[in-house]
Amino acid sequence: MQIAVLLYDGFTALDAVGPYETLAHLPGTETVFVAERPGPVRCDSGRLSLVAEKALDEVPRPDIVVVPGCPQPETQTGNPAVLDWLRTVDTATTWTTSVCTGSQILAAAGLLDGRRATGHWLYLDRLPAYGVRPTGERVVFDGKYVTAAGVSAGIDMGLALVGRLAGDEQAQTVQLMIEYDPRPPYDAGSPEKAPADLVARLRAVSPLPSR
Amino acid sequence: MQIAVLLYDGFTALDAVGPYETLAHLPGTETVFVAERPGPVRCDSGRLSLVAEKALDEVPRPDIVVVPGCPQPETQTGNPAVLDWLRTVDTATTWTTSVCTGSQILAAAGLLDGRRATGHWLYLDRLPAYGVRPTGERVVFDGKYVTAAGVSAGIDMGLALVGRLAGDEQAQTVQLMIEYDPRPPYDAGSPEKAPADLVARLRAVSPLPSR
Repeated sequence: MQIAVLLYDGFTALDAVGPYETLAHLPGTETVFVAERPGPVRCDSGRLSLVAEKALDEVPRPDIVVVPGCPQPETQTGNPAVLDWLRTVDTATTWTTSVCTGSQILAAAGLLDGRRATGHWLYLDRLPAYGVRPTGERVVFDGKYVTAAGVSAGIDMGLALVGRLAGDEQAQTVQLMIEYDPRPPYDAGSPEKAPADLVARLRAVSPLPSR
Repeated sequence: MQIAVLLYDGFTALDAVGPYETLAHLPGTETVFVAERPGPVRCDSGRLSLVAEKALDEVPRPDIVVVPGCPQPETQTGNPAVLDWLRTVDTATTWTTSVCTGSQILAAAGLLDGRRATGHWLYLDRLPAYGVRPTGERVVFDGKYVTAAGVSAGIDMGLALVGRLAGDEQAQTVQLMIEYDPRPPYDAGSPEKAPADLVARLRAVSPLPSR
């Protein structure tokens, strides 16, 4: 089973690494980081690069595709190379997935038409323009399409996928290995829980400037 | 403020990316990924490389150092280049930190002598040999030394550090931006919570083979 994680300039690192760290250690899987061109691909902070081992056309039939998000998804929703590749590989995937604003990229490729999907809370209102029904849920399964909320939600999505792929015990093993027993020191991880003035301030500066 | 994240062959990606994703977006900070040699550094799965922008000697005075762990910490606990660098930079850091078995590397550098520290649950029993008092807590502050439990605990550590560095509101902002409102689909993230037979099976194969 081949798992392809898409990289592109300005992606959010944890969006890609969360699902990777849960999926890549499954027995019988091969994970490949893929981008328009092989080589280092810079994250949104400008301070970190992950290496794409393959070009898009070298990975024509992954079983699972993971699309990370970023603060400027419009850089990819207008990128024919990425959208064409997503449409092509989607014809043969078992699971087509996204984290954060990655759902907007899948939507722009026309893959979520009429489906329920989630994404980063600040960007959910962009999804209806693509015929997608947004929800604020953390992980959404709709057919073979799996979308996760912002950034850190890719870990929850990855564990849920491991459960579907390899069973509950394997997923629990991965959870225990990555010691995923979260204890956030604050309780501000969603717009429902965070202080209202903080939520309002972030909405006021959205869409976010490049970080 | 400069934040240095150490990379070395075989490190666990999420150990490094969790703290990065919480710390690197703080205003007024510069994050640098550093390794013995600049260039791509391969993770434990063999399937992903992160790029070190600088060599160790190019980063002589970071304010914060983050040491990720890996399944084979002995590759680094016997590496004089890394241990010497850690001892040198530690003389000037504000915070010296680790995730997962990174605490064993800090301990091997002699930096945790007599201190309380945590790390990956499967490896905690290695710490007393270095004069360290292990605890199963998720994040441990002891003076300027901050250690996190396995892999995913670096996110909690990063948020706690942001709180100390920039205040609660900034930490809540980061938490909301990375939508860290965890909903693990299973409750097996610690040896206390996971099924006993699963814990026993992992203990039986520890130390873990290279992934």
